[in-house]
Amino acid sequence: MSAMTRRVVLARFCDGPPVAEDFRIEEAPMPEPRDGQFLVRNILISVDPGTRARLSGKPSYIPPLKLGATVGAFSIGEIIDSRHPDFAPGEIVSLADGWAEHVIGDPRGFVRRITDRRLPLAAWLGVLGVSGMTAWFGLHRVANLQAGETVVVTSAAGAVGSAAGQLARIHGCKVIGVAGGPAKCDWLTGPARLDAAIDYKATGDLPAAIAAAAPEGVDVLFDNVGNAMIDRIIPLMRQNGRIVVSGQVDAYNTSDELAVEGIRNTRAFITHRLMMQGLVVFDDLPDWGAAEATMANHMVDGSLMGRWEVLPGGLEATPEAFAGLFRGENTGRRLVRLAPDPDDFPKDPS
Amino acid sequence: MSAMTRRVVLARFCDGPPVAEDFRIEEAPMPEPRDGQFLVRNILISVDPGTRARLSGKPSYIPPLKLGATVGAFSIGEIIDSRHPDFAPGEIVSLADGWAEHVIGDPRGFVRRITDRRLPLAAWLGVLGVSGMTAWFGLHRVANLQAGETVVVTSAAGAVGSAAGQLARIHGCKVIGVAGGPAKCDWLTGPARLDAAIDYKATGDLPAAIAAAAPEGVDVLFDNVGNAMIDRIIPLMRQNGRIVVSGQVDAYNTSDELAVEGIRNTRAFITHRLMMQGLVVFDDLPDWGAAEATMANHMVDGSLMGRWEVLPGGLEATPEAFAGLFRGENTGRRLVRLAPDPDDFPKDPS
Repeated sequence: MSAMTRRVVLARFCDGPPVAEDFRIEEAPMPEPRDGQFLVRNILISVDPGTRARLSGKPSYIPPLKLGATVGAFSIGEIIDSRHPDFAPGEIVSLADGWAEHVIGDPRGFVRRITDRRLPLAAWLGVLGVSGMTAWFGLHRVANLQAGETVVVTSAAGAVGSAAGQLARIHGCKVIGVAGGPAKCDWLTGPARLDAAIDYKATGDLPAAIAAAAPEGVDVLFDNVGNAMIDRIIPLMRQNGRIVVSGQVDAYNTSDELAVEGIRNTRAFITHRLMMQGLVVFDDLPDWGAAEATMANHMVDGSLMGRWEVLPGGLEATPEAFAGLFRGENTGRRLVRLAPDPDDFPKDPS
Repeated sequence: MSAMTRRVVLARFCDGPPVAEDFRIEEAPMPEPRDGQFLVRNILISVDPGTRARLSGKPSYIPPLKLGATVGAFSIGEIIDSRHPDFAPGEIVSLADGWAEHVIGDPRGFVRRITDRRLPLAAWLGVLGVSGMTAWFGLHRVANLQAGETVVVTSAAGAVGSAAGQLARIHGCKVIGVAGGPAKCDWLTGPARLDAAIDYKATGDLPAAIAAAAPEGVDVLFDNVGNAMIDRIIPLMRQNGRIVVSGQVDAYNTSDELAVEGIRNTRAFITHRLMMQGLVVFDDLPDWGAAEATMANHMVDGSLMGRWEVLPGGLEATPEAFAGLFRGENTGRRLVRLAPDPDDFPKDPS
């Protein structure tokens, strides 16, 4: 093929909150699948705060992205050419190959086939993608959530948090969401039907506000924010409480890990037998199918509301869409549309 | 009875490291057992750093001790009067009723009968008491230790740490002990037969020293020190590493929990799937019997060395023996002798 395609690459290392100028759009020859691979035309791509950790050029636990490399992201697209016997052109797949109009799919890496056509395609990058899976396995594997427990979710209107709060509610728990601003809180106690929402920006004393909403104490803290948030909530935790370290929005913006505040209230780990554990949801990949199916049913029956937005503008809009995450502009998971959905999926309401 | 007995009470709240003047010896009438109780004449009592947390008079997770109250401690003694059908005078028991010459035993509370006469009585307050049980259940329940793993134990020559390091070695693990001073380190690589010992006082760069001893990384950190120590070792931990929060020597001396340094390296909880959990060993009481029996066998066959010291001087010596803990003067678990051992136990070598 002599056709060309485009992708977004890292133009310079980020220092602090990312800006659109940290990235550059590049033309490249259309990639060609080898045996066992296929070519995918992306329809929707995600912009994720977690990507920030790889953009500073500094060695970290995650290998840093090199200058000129395609920025990593999840996407959903249509197979347009295949050299894999089990994947045919026209099939819809979700992959993790970056901000690009075309990517190579390889089932030896991360590829999810999307066959359930009851929900808009975006749902499979939003609630039914990594965000929702992180919520599911954080609650069910890491925290071993039990019906009747009290759960606090931070960044509760975010991509992961919005799924976690609702899944905990569906499991029969009392759920308190912590989020910033009245619009997010209205969503939490409205469509998401959580028991309480606390606007941390409007609340002088966050622990007191949580204690008022949950005088019985907190069994599970599902945290997406970071150390300072965890430290403030630990004194509210009950015996045998579990802290799920799901994400660290607070830390993604700093290249110096040690600049973040630490968790000091650790004596409660002994006195209250607390457990804190992090997760990377790909460890649970063998179990995704069952979780996806259950959660898709919850979405179809209306008990689980998606919280995502699809921005127009194609690949060009991606850097700015990403930068906006760090100004708190997103409503749940943020996606960018590169091409129209196939006709046999329901229309995306967003 | 008109006989009198003596006990050590809190004379004033501690602020910083405890001193002998914080305590006072009081005479009191001999306590009388009610139905279902028995009277014990203490033979050995323990002085434990963990007691410090209750001596500041400030509300904490643990209820503070009141002025004039008997200071809590473990002890071993002989039943001298009984109103319980299953406990007879002459039996030896371990209890948790404080620094006193005589205490009331009540099996509805903490009472362990000591019948195994293969080991000196002190062993049942040292390795086979709460310290050793904390080591056992921290390693086996909390960390789910696997043979072949690499374990770092901090405060490794202390009461809990000395048991934890050896138990991990017996389980087939590579063990690195961190302790202060050459004498402790010599004990760790000598009688305790750990793979390596690091003198944190003589080592400028503790993480580098651990990394040199364990280039493969650390699977389990059994920590008795506190946040700053945990924070320094986290970057060395392997995927799926576990941190056992066993004790917090660093924090016992400060009445302000928030004055202690925090754990900042929490991003590794996500990237490396770390798990951190604390324990209170009384939760495992139903399983103590099997652990005690196994560990007693290890002691009899010489694979598990006790590390305790028995100070003479009776009850009067107790406050100063306790204060000395915070100057690092103890060698393993510190006990104070109030009366001679019964003749049918082996002589204590210490």
